[in-house]
Amino acid sequence: MTVHPVIEAAARLLGEVRERRPKVHCLTNSVVQKFTADGLSALGAVPSMTSSLDEVADFARQADALLVNLGTLDPGRREAIMLGLDTFETTGRPWALDPVHCELSPLRLAFARQLLARGPAVTRGNAKEIAVLGEAPPGTIVIQTGASDLVRLAGRELAIRNGHPLMAAVTGTGCLSGALIASFLALGQDRLTGAASALLFLGVAAEIAAETARGPGTFAAALLDAVANATPADVMERGRVDDGAA
Amino acid sequence: MTVHPVIEAAARLLGEVRERRPKVHCLTNSVVQKFTADGLSALGAVPSMTSSLDEVADFARQADALLVNLGTLDPGRREAIMLGLDTFETTGRPWALDPVHCELSPLRLAFARQLLARGPAVTRGNAKEIAVLGEAPPGTIVIQTGASDLVRLAGRELAIRNGHPLMAAVTGTGCLSGALIASFLALGQDRLTGAASALLFLGVAAEIAAETARGPGTFAAALLDAVANATPADVMERGRVDDGAA
Amino acid sequence: MTVHPVIEAAARLLGEVRERRPKVHCLTNSVVQKFTADGLSALGAVPSMTSSLDEVADFARQADALLVNLGTLDPGRREAIMLGLDTFETTGRPWALDPVHCELSPLRLAFARQLLARGPAVTRGNAKEIAVLGEAPPGTIVIQTGASDLVRLAGRELAIRNGHPLMAAVTGTGCLSGALIASFLALGQDRLTGAASALLFLGVAAEIAAETARGPGTFAAALLDAVANATPADVMERGRVDDGAA
Repeated sequence: MTVHPVIEAAARLLGEVRERRPKVHCLTNSVVQKFTADGLSALGAVPSMTSSLDEVADFARQADALLVNLGTLDPGRREAIMLGLDTFETTGRPWALDPVHCELSPLRLAFARQLLARGPAVTRGNAKEIAVLGEAPPGTIVIQTGASDLVRLAGRELAIRNGHPLMAAVTGTGCLSGALIASFLALGQDRLTGAASALLFLGVAAEIAAETARGPGTFAAALLDAVANATPADVMERGRVDDGAA
Repeated sequence: MTVHPVIEAAARLLGEVRERRPKVHCLTNSVVQKFTADGLSALGAVPSMTSSLDEVADFARQADALLVNLGTLDPGRREAIMLGLDTFETTGRPWALDPVHCELSPLRLAFARQLLARGPAVTRGNAKEIAVLGEAPPGTIVIQTGASDLVRLAGRELAIRNGHPLMAAVTGTGCLSGALIASFLALGQDRLTGAASALLFLGVAAEIAAETARGPGTFAAALLDAVANATPADVMERGRVDDGAA
Repeated sequence: MTVHPVIEAAARLLGEVRERRPKVHCLTNSVVQKFTADGLSALGAVPSMTSSLDEVADFARQADALLVNLGTLDPGRREAIMLGLDTFETTGRPWALDPVHCELSPLRLAFARQLLARGPAVTRGNAKEIAVLGEAPPGTIVIQTGASDLVRLAGRELAIRNGHPLMAAVTGTGCLSGALIASFLALGQDRLTGAASALLFLGVAAEIAAETARGPGTFAAALLDAVANATPADVMERGRVDDGAA
């Protein structure tokens, strides 16, 4: 029986991200800042979080990857995102777009589309968000998370079968997946493989966490533990990926 | 021995809130956003959190209930509260006012009174906050939380005897109670019964959580677990309510 | 064998802080507000968190100690810090400066130096932050946290040997140490002893927490438990302090 190459890549990249400790700057919503930072630290990445207009360029310039998340999107953060991107794009490094709840606000949707047109390495959302977002530029990976996570690029589709229903009961697990994707992309490997590997890893960690959790509160803590402790061997043993037709 | 009707209502409404999954928009302080969202998700409600001026009307319009919480009250959120209320009041749906620490700042107290005059379905505070807040409009339920939670409307008073001292050691349990009240009010039943039921349920969940907690940190996680897992039978078995004289 | 006087002081001050329950106002970053508030509550202190311009003076005036933390430093919070300090300095009470990541942004560094020149009772940072911050005023205690925590004042140095590597995997433990230092300083004893005692106590709590933690997620919860439950006897038994040469 052969192992899917994305599973092997995920096991290898997990080791690499812990060794290289990429710096990930997050322009993200106020609700999930601590959980995202804790998840990145648990992985071995180095998070920073400021959306202050006069600091964002300095932090973006020094980051290995950038996460743009549109939750609780106030005008100041919109401006910070534009400023941060202007600087970050000059580095040629990858950034991820998470268009949180863009289906609930016309203004947020318009802004999400404007950002999408700038060509992020990846955009990630749930089925509703991806449906309203519209066509992505040809080089952008589109990820639709749910019971299975679908990863699409240029007519190719990967379906990641890992994860656990308790993820949906904890605010910020979707946002965290965007941050982990950014961390794996920072390693500079093939982007489709990198993004799929990050999702697969988080899904494996969630399955491990669910084994000791007694509900969403203890699951959130156990998930951070598992992100810190899950091994490449866990990934090899638990990873489930299918090639689909996009 | 007869069971108090509020206990029976709480058991029934718990099932109903999990089935109907009301959308609760929270205009709340930055400290407790994640804990409140996690508590609402654990209950089965659907939280949203933006206070952005150009989004708040869109989110408020689609919500089944609204929570207005005055912690860390900056001018932008004050404006967002007014905008959100202007839209939300046209729906006729219930909203809850949590005048956090209004005894510590004259400006916050003045704003709390201005909001109270608009007639929320319920206002909730601790003894100090309720004392300075002054007279509520005749249709507004006034809840004073503490060792017992007192729920007052039009000369009637209910005393909820559930809860646990560890609640006071976790920032945001009071704010969470406001969010749960909003969720139960969204079901559209008698408001006094709905508000009292939400408090009783949270108190029961806290008692269950305290059985496994080793301190405030593990209590917070166990409380979210219990909000997700406590059953109508737990409510029937543990609920304690007295009719008092207001 | 004699016990170091800082260990005896830490055991005594722990009892005192729980009895006197100092009010600590925190002008701190949005990422760690809840964790800081929970840590202060676990200790027995009374936290408040607003950075709203029209409230900050009222809250600062009523506080026993003030924490100024420069994470996610937006212009509004910079202004709030200046306003809060203007009021708070008139009380003569102690304040602590935490120049988070001042090495990553020239603007943040300039602001940190401007604040340092106002003479906080203590400034706390990691090795990188303290290195770029430059000379402190003669009366300001300089604390460099790391594997050992170094506490320096006027040619004297104390090295606190307690703590645990998991602290570095949880966002906000450094920020929490600043808040605990402020709480201990509020008791009005010798400031060098107070600041060193707070660090020693947090290090002891971290060691206790690590005994049951399975990773950074469960460690964060266990740390709050230990801050609430650790006894003066735990401090006496586990405390490790050396006098160094500054």
